[in-house]
Amino acid sequence: MHAGRAGHILNHMVQHRTAHVDASFSALADVTRRGVLEQLGRGDASITELAAKFRMTLTGMKKHVGVLEHAGLVTTRKLGRVRSCSLGPRRLDQEVAWIERYRELWSARFDALDEVVAELKLEEKADARRKRK
Amino acid sequence: MHAGRAGHILNHMVQHRTAHVDASFSALADVTRRGVLEQLGRGDASITELAAKFRMTLTGMKKHVGVLEHAGLVTTRKLGRVRSCSLGPRRLDQEVAWIERYRELWSARFDALDEVVAELKLEEKADARRKRK
Repeated sequence: MHAGRAGHILNHMVQHRTAHVDASFSALADVTRRGVLEQLGRGDASITELAAKFRMTLTGMKKHVGVLEHAGLVTTRKLGRVRSCSLGPRRLDQEVAWIERYRELWSARFDALDEVVAELKLEEKADARRKRK
Repeated sequence: MHAGRAGHILNHMVQHRTAHVDASFSALADVTRRGVLEQLGRGDASITELAAKFRMTLTGMKKHVGVLEHAGLVTTRKLGRVRSCSLGPRRLDQEVAWIERYRELWSARFDALDEVVAELKLEEKADARRKRK
């Protein structure tokens, strides 16, 4: 395969995954949508049931479910006149992987700061001892 | 303490934590902002340096850093004429806790579905055997 083309495809894949991660973090940035996911984790529910549970209009709930569906976190299907919602195929693997890597970087940064602070304290003590002599 | 007041305070605490989680997921829903966090995980940087790194205007980068700062993920301080950015105090503990609980619910739901499918298959086999007799 031509290197440029391979690069193009890889780039496309990365962008595709990136768009997915953007969409799911964005979907999770709302307390009602997180609540809907928890609810569907306990069992399927219709839009009407979800709207009643979260004291929301049907239109409002449809919007939230739409955002979750777009992010692959919810699947809906029409059963007669009722739209039934269930958890979607995405298990947030990429999102967890990103956050875990971030937490490692974070810990490493703050460990490094702790070391600097500890060194400064040792120097201070040494200074104080010299002055006492 | 009066029960109503305790309830009010607890409610306030939950809302406060909820707003935090909303803000951080929202901050993470952008590839540039995730990139800035990774960059700051490797070392502090000024807004100017970040803007150059991500090929962005100063105004655009200031906005992104503002969103991250609001979410407690970045801290900035003014050193002379330069605004230096470093990782903030929040390590995404609540966000990880939420996602982990969600993944458990998700696995339990799909395990339950797997069981239903397995049962249906067994019934089908039994049916086929009965018909052959």
